[in-house]
Amino acid sequence: MSAASSPEPVSIPASERVFSLILAEGPISRVAIARRTGLSQAAVTKLAKPLLAAGYLEETADRERTGPGAGRPASPLQIRAEREFFVGIKLTEYHLIGVLADLRADVRARLTRDLSRRDPAGTVTQLAAMVDWLRRAEPRFHERSSSLGVAVSGDVDRRRGLVGYSPFLDWHDVPLAAMIGEATGMTVTIENDVKALTVGEQWYGAGAGVADFAVVTLGQGIGSGLVLGNRLHSGAYGVAGELGHTPVGGDEPPCRCGGRGCVEAIASSEVITAEVRRATGSTSLGFPNAVRLAESDDPVVKPIFDRAAAAVGRAIATLANLTGPERIVVAADNRDLAGYRGFHDEVRRSYTQQAFGSAGHSDLVFVHRPLDAWARAAAVIALQARLAR
Amino acid sequence: MSAASSPEPVSIPASERVFSLILAEGPISRVAIARRTGLSQAAVTKLAKPLLAAGYLEETADRERTGPGAGRPASPLQIRAEREFFVGIKLTEYHLIGVLADLRADVRARLTRDLSRRDPAGTVTQLAAMVDWLRRAEPRFHERSSSLGVAVSGDVDRRRGLVGYSPFLDWHDVPLAAMIGEATGMTVTIENDVKALTVGEQWYGAGAGVADFAVVTLGQGIGSGLVLGNRLHSGAYGVAGELGHTPVGGDEPPCRCGGRGCVEAIASSEVITAEVRRATGSTSLGFPNAVRLAESDDPVVKPIFDRAAAAVGRAIATLANLTGPERIVVAADNRDLAGYRGFHDEVRRSYTQQAFGSAGHSDLVFVHRPLDAWARAAAVIALQARLAR
Ligand SMILES: [Zn+2]
Ligand SMILES: [Zn+2]
Repeated sequence: MSAASSPEPVSIPASERVFSLILAEGPISRVAIARRTGLSQAAVTKLAKPLLAAGYLEETADRERTGPGAGRPASPLQIRAEREFFVGIKLTEYHLIGVLADLRADVRARLTRDLSRRDPAGTVTQLAAMVDWLRRAEPRFHERSSSLGVAVSGDVDRRRGLVGYSPFLDWHDVPLAAMIGEATGMTVTIENDVKALTVGEQWYGAGAGVADFAVVTLGQGIGSGLVLGNRLHSGAYGVAGELGHTPVGGDEPPCRCGGRGCVEAIASSEVITAEVRRATGSTSLGFPNAVRLAESDDPVVKPIFDRAAAAVGRAIATLANLTGPERIVVAADNRDLAGYRGFHDEVRRSYTQQAFGSAGHSDLVFVHRPLDAWARAAAVIALQARLAR
Repeated sequence: MSAASSPEPVSIPASERVFSLILAEGPISRVAIARRTGLSQAAVTKLAKPLLAAGYLEETADRERTGPGAGRPASPLQIRAEREFFVGIKLTEYHLIGVLADLRADVRARLTRDLSRRDPAGTVTQLAAMVDWLRRAEPRFHERSSSLGVAVSGDVDRRRGLVGYSPFLDWHDVPLAAMIGEATGMTVTIENDVKALTVGEQWYGAGAGVADFAVVTLGQGIGSGLVLGNRLHSGAYGVAGELGHTPVGGDEPPCRCGGRGCVEAIASSEVITAEVRRATGSTSLGFPNAVRLAESDDPVVKPIFDRAAAAVGRAIATLANLTGPERIVVAADNRDLAGYRGFHDEVRRSYTQQAFGSAGHSDLVFVHRPLDAWARAAAVIALQARLAR
């Protein structure tokens, strides 16, 4: 009575899995793709066909045989990097970070601009100018790019193209995809920034090949993304992965979200910087210097980072207790924090203490993901949307 | 390049979806099953075939036609309740609660016993005696039952039949399924108790027909179960849904898990009872009476319940922030708490305050699930394992 090979009511984008595997590991043969994805060889062949027809994939000259005496040639598949280009923009409270990436998700042009106006219309005007500049960097970029991905923090409804709520920008119910589409003439996909980064990790980062993993982001905000069974988990109402608002601090401090004791209100880079400034009296000290002071065991600064790390560890334990990922990728946008071992150790200690039973077995991996990486992930969201069309 | 109908690397038990739908709504036609599950009619027919052959399903006399002039009779399907019986046991720190259920998950016999010994061997001996009694209640029970489900709190590896860690019982790495199998001669499936209850809600309870929902249990322990895309979510290491150890209380109080500020250490029925006893000086007051005092707005007792409800609401908000379920079923094992509106209101208020954006849209449903319901769910786990064989 087993139903292991039964038809499937839930659709997982298998063509995306094939494409992202080729992206991460190509050139790769259909046989190897089948082995790695669990798909049948016939299915891989069927999925590759329209991608080959559209010129997204090509067969390499390097031919191999499917088996002894099989006689059928099986050329490894690879991505035609310059077949199409994709623009990705990461929108923050203060900046616009933009990249233009090729079909292999390699960045070919990049640009950062301060955000002089933060209202939706003003933001869209600046964003459209950035997109225009990126596409005009080379003539073929403009000719072969029509898909744009935009990553925004907060409650983003990708399907409806709507920013429901973005606390950094103080936006409510902004139909951002339509507004940007009108301003740029491109096909626009918007996504929560952490979800976008999570897809990036899945396609070519620290989550590649892992069926169940989480991404935890540390920076101005604290967030999380979840991949379960090789799929990005979105939540019934579009919100999932709002790790920043896990109340690990009890009733204090209040958070801008309206809740209390949120990890983001304890361990965001802004909050840490403010505390270090207050404790040291250095009112212009920046976050990177604060990290360096902590790393050198400064008796005033180190406890502030320890407290932040403990809060992050408790939030990560909560995530692991509730969802049990195989791996947790902790992505810091600051290079110094990403390299600060003492901080990682304290996160691990706190995570291990609060994790329940086997939930403490998740593999914690610390990586550095600057804002460029987020913009690149936004380009991958555009590519992903293109593949689905 | 869409892959909507592509072959599927991840297997979801479609036969289980068909069976549980018939269980919840049968008699039901293949056409209606196809419509409700999103499966094709051909797939439903194919899935039903072995279930009919095994005598688990039968066609009702009440015939209908598949369509105008189709000519093919389509008798609604129903479950043959007495084809097989299943034993379910819920194991707690103090009690064994057992039921024998038929194939429709209707309870036909039940038994509760105090647990006089709590070590694995002693527990198994008592459990085997209970199973024997339940199966001997009627001769056909014994003849037609060979599957046993056991629900245990803690870190349970269903696949390996292992209790990794159970704080209530203070067990570590106990090969419980094999021990019970040897003692009873039955095919044994063990599962985390909250996960078992969650499957019960999915099959015939407050989660029936909802693709993404969570169950939150309130009682001696606090736990959660997740169904995502119609599947019970298990976590890479078997642990998921340990809501009880969400640190909503900051650094206090310490919890038996080794963590701090866990919601279970603030809002379990035992902790609430102890606090009410201390505050009122009534050292023998029970939990049900404590609930009644709070419900009558006792100025000493009500704040204790309010504080517990606020902690529960913050934990539920964390769950919603991270996983975004469509519905959250809050199941209290105590009838009075399940009916105490003031408590529900305070849980909702706190949940709404801490939920981020759309994560506050989840539908909160309060239900009463006494220990019998947990044992019944354990029987469903046995049935589910039987269907998979
Ligand atoms: Zn918050
Ligand atoms: Zn705990």
